[in-house]
Amino acid sequence: MAEQVKLFGMWASPYSRRVELALKLKGIQYEYIEEDLSNKSPLLLKYNPVHKKIPVLVHNGKPIVESQVILEYIDETWKNNPILPQHPYDRAMARFWANFIEEKFMRTPWRAYVGTKEEQEQAREEGFELLKMLENELNGKDFFGGETIGYVDIFGFSLAVWHGVVREVFGVDLITENKFPVFLKWSRKFNEIDVVNECRPPVEKHIAYMRARIEAFKSATK
Amino acid sequence: MAEQVKLFGMWASPYSRRVELALKLKGIQYEYIEEDLSNKSPLLLKYNPVHKKIPVLVHNGKPIVESQVILEYIDETWKNNPILPQHPYDRAMARFWANFIEEKFMRTPWRAYVGTKEEQEQAREEGFELLKMLENELNGKDFFGGETIGYVDIFGFSLAVWHGVVREVFGVDLITENKFPVFLKWSRKFNEIDVVNECRPPVEKHIAYMRARIEAFKSATK
Repeated sequence: MAEQVKLFGMWASPYSRRVELALKLKGIQYEYIEEDLSNKSPLLLKYNPVHKKIPVLVHNGKPIVESQVILEYIDETWKNNPILPQHPYDRAMARFWANFIEEKFMRTPWRAYVGTKEEQEQAREEGFELLKMLENELNGKDFFGGETIGYVDIFGFSLAVWHGVVREVFGVDLITENKFPVFLKWSRKFNEIDVVNECRPPVEKHIAYMRARIEAFKSATK
Repeated sequence: MAEQVKLFGMWASPYSRRVELALKLKGIQYEYIEEDLSNKSPLLLKYNPVHKKIPVLVHNGKPIVESQVILEYIDETWKNNPILPQHPYDRAMARFWANFIEEKFMRTPWRAYVGTKEEQEQAREEGFELLKMLENELNGKDFFGGETIGYVDIFGFSLAVWHGVVREVFGVDLITENKFPVFLKWSRKFNEIDVVNECRPPVEKHIAYMRARIEAFKSATK
């Protein structure tokens, strides 16, 4: 039986983009289905009745949800071009740093740009400290995964994309060369990879989308 | 070289208790170090400089942190008595339900017992809906892992322990036989297992600890 792989995603979602990146790194053919999150399809609700969220990977009719769970599934199912390292300790470290990016950078980065001056200051200081930790982890390596990109780099994908877009949207660059040379070197090298470029959301559209989201965020918190 | 396994934990923490349960299920000998969370040891801060939290597993001198990461490490390092299922799809489902318990039950269960009457009502309704989902997943099986306990059961450990203690503390039983027969059957069967009993915090001490925490929570939110 031919493999049937479908991905339900949303073009600007870092969670579905990282699944696409993993599929492309493995060379897996898949059908992509774009979801309108303001009007979710019956299929999405059927495949993810608990959380009703993208991304959903459907492999031979069976749904897998949550990007971290999907990435582990992909790596266990298609063994070529491993995403996670082989040794249990290295795997644990990769999961640790992936969780770190997920927890520390995916939830409240807005505070560094919007809110009162004091809130911005505080969020920036915190962000700098966290980025320093990532820099230390990256130091001396091309990628988090070593010589090639791996699990942590796939999570870092959102950071690399986000950094460029946020700089455009706010006209402020918090991640400067003199502060974070290692991160920026990684980001440049990462952004040169073909499959990474294939997975990046179109820049202009992404900037417009971010501007609209920030406006919505600002009016909601007024 | 003899294996050296140390666990830095805290007796009432469900996160460190679940690591102990996994170690005992595998029959791994380990040294347990109790941490005073109000005065963390230099070793804990050295081994977990990022989060400064328990549990930390130290295997032959190398630290692994975060209970989920530790459980995966244990299962990959000691292959006997597997905790996760073997097939990638079953593994994905186990990780999904473990995350479900983690997200939905480990963070804000207090609201169902404290707060205004309306807040309690709402939190209870939400809790019932989530427990129903767990019941559906358990239905027809002895354990989440099938015939023996596995990854999801280890996460459910906190629910099984918590249910009994919370019932005593508040004098209210929200998880009743007529509402959740499947969950209660699982909980009883689970609580009969020897290693589970070895890992349970002492009941009276646990109740006293919970009472003190709830008082602290109430004064902090006044």
